[in-house]
Amino acid sequence: MTTAIASQSLTLTHDLPLDCGQSLAAARIAFETYGELNADKSNAVLVCHALTGDQYVASNHPITGKPGWWERMVGPGRPIDTGRFHVICANVIGSCMGSTGPSSIAPDGERYALRFPVITVRDMARAQIALIDALGIERLHTVVGGSMGGMQVLSLAANFPERAARVLAIATTARHSAQNIAFHEVGRQAIMADPNWRGGSYYGHAAPDAGLAVARMAAHITYLSEAGLTEKFGRRLQDRAEKSFGFDADFQVESYLRYQGSGFTQRFDANSYLYITRAMDYFDLAEEVSSGGEGSGKLADAFAGHAMGKGARFFLISFDSDWLYPTAESRHVVHALNAVGAPVSFVELSAPHGHDSFLLDVPALDRVVRGFLR
Amino acid sequence: MTTAIASQSLTLTHDLPLDCGQSLAAARIAFETYGELNADKSNAVLVCHALTGDQYVASNHPITGKPGWWERMVGPGRPIDTGRFHVICANVIGSCMGSTGPSSIAPDGERYALRFPVITVRDMARAQIALIDALGIERLHTVVGGSMGGMQVLSLAANFPERAARVLAIATTARHSAQNIAFHEVGRQAIMADPNWRGGSYYGHAAPDAGLAVARMAAHITYLSEAGLTEKFGRRLQDRAEKSFGFDADFQVESYLRYQGSGFTQRFDANSYLYITRAMDYFDLAEEVSSGGEGSGKLADAFAGHAMGKGARFFLISFDSDWLYPTAESRHVVHALNAVGAPVSFVELSAPHGHDSFLLDVPALDRVVRGFLR
Repeated sequence: MTTAIASQSLTLTHDLPLDCGQSLAAARIAFETYGELNADKSNAVLVCHALTGDQYVASNHPITGKPGWWERMVGPGRPIDTGRFHVICANVIGSCMGSTGPSSIAPDGERYALRFPVITVRDMARAQIALIDALGIERLHTVVGGSMGGMQVLSLAANFPERAARVLAIATTARHSAQNIAFHEVGRQAIMADPNWRGGSYYGHAAPDAGLAVARMAAHITYLSEAGLTEKFGRRLQDRAEKSFGFDADFQVESYLRYQGSGFTQRFDANSYLYITRAMDYFDLAEEVSSGGEGSGKLADAFAGHAMGKGARFFLISFDSDWLYPTAESRHVVHALNAVGAPVSFVELSAPHGHDSFLLDVPALDRVVRGFLR
Repeated sequence: MTTAIASQSLTLTHDLPLDCGQSLAAARIAFETYGELNADKSNAVLVCHALTGDQYVASNHPITGKPGWWERMVGPGRPIDTGRFHVICANVIGSCMGSTGPSSIAPDGERYALRFPVITVRDMARAQIALIDALGIERLHTVVGGSMGGMQVLSLAANFPERAARVLAIATTARHSAQNIAFHEVGRQAIMADPNWRGGSYYGHAAPDAGLAVARMAAHITYLSEAGLTEKFGRRLQDRAEKSFGFDADFQVESYLRYQGSGFTQRFDANSYLYITRAMDYFDLAEEVSSGGEGSGKLADAFAGHAMGKGARFFLISFDSDWLYPTAESRHVVHALNAVGAPVSFVELSAPHGHDSFLLDVPALDRVVRGFLR
């Protein structure tokens, strides 16, 4: 893992308060922008990225050289049209592409490693708000994101109801389920079981790439549907006519997973993976507004700032093949918004790719996103 | 991992032929029996165990001291009534509870480790047949198993159609899907990434317990349903009132998974886990009877020996919450049996526990199993 030099970054002059009770001094937020900001600053669209995403939403990744992760959605003439909108995408705090995270240098001149405070999705949203404050943007035209990006979108809307006119949350949830937490815990255990992890203090040494690759492999399965995997790979063998009767990657799906795992370690920091999965597991929007213990929050209360149409317009999108954050999770948010009388639209799209559908070629997604930003 | 002394075992005097082309010399099959074999040897029920199961179906496990894994199904007055049936359960070859596997001593006096040949589910069935041959049992009253036990059941029925009068396959499939293979590959990679694995030659050294625990954790999630996990754990915290903002097991589901992972390493050999998951991934009953490449086999052909009612009576059982081997996989088998005119019953049971339902308290399962063996 090499730390990239972000093309733009902001260093906060105030301490960023965190849910854990600590605060981050001189936090750095790395970001990219696309398209011109208009004179009254009313055309800004904030795109929030997912767990392993970054600010390179519509430009080449500086390490891999690959195109931006949402180029089919963001660009000239695209549904989020950079000819019309000023698109902002910031690396989340805790990550490793230029924003302050566990691999960053702490004020004492040493890497944070596990001294980095455990952050939450709300902390990520606070950093997004600090960025648009610095850019002088009072109200976003739209805040949009899929997966963990969608969690930030919901958190930003709940905690800063006046800061976005349109709220678009895709393939996401207002809380991590037991199964979601379980899959993340497997990944964290894989990383922490790697002797190279050294209690998080591996900087300057070999990184825990083997553990991180296993974590990525396990997570990657949850991003795809069973039917999608069957269609893409089935039981087809990889570059061979017969089974090898050994432990090589006989099946294409094995080869693909190994490639996903090892490729990921080139661009991602294992400690960032621990911190960001933890933030996702802690995410429960109803819990945040509750005074008591588990389950005592009411999700509708989280959206009180949008009561009776005085807040944003909402749009929720789910995919029928997404078993990580199934449609029921989006409906749960829709019902909460209905309960406070906030204007909300919802659509479940049919797509074969599972959770990853929000990143892939789903023409219906392009159409509905374009329509919502009209 | 300590190797247990099985209470009964058979050492084959002939070489056991394997699908890989090699054969196993002096293979040992460790087994348990319950109930008396009658004079004409017509009351034998062979129980086939799952991936991490063993021969202790209805008696205490010699390492953990826990009750047998299917005591609610097998015993006096139970659906598989040991007052009436002679129940046989053998440790599969490749495993580590007394039957020959990678942790066994090879003819050269050294542990097999990765020199152990890669086996298949059909090879396991061949070993089961060798055992009932040695016991002088021509035709089983019933062959029964869940999960990988069900795969052995189907393989035995397909390859040795005259050896069982009743065939009962529970929560299983006739082929491993791409998603099934993918989850197993994550587990194998976790084991092989553990430096203690040493290319499989870790006997006499520390075992790759950390990798094996991660493998078990990943697999364990697939055995449970999302709804079951939510009901059992939800987002409840473990022995604390507030989140710790750290990487301890804050959530009950994390604590549970860690316990499952570490407990497993006490009783299971990591190389056995590699070999048995490989056998399951290789399993495709249609492929076995096909001469050509992928997908060219027809599952019905595998059951040709049961055509027009001259073979066994079949019964397939699936669970509605099982996403590892969903009901569609059982239906696929039923349709193949229909195509050859074999007598087959099928039921999908409603149970909240996911794949593990076959091991858990599902009274409807008891009833239908009892009925089928009547």
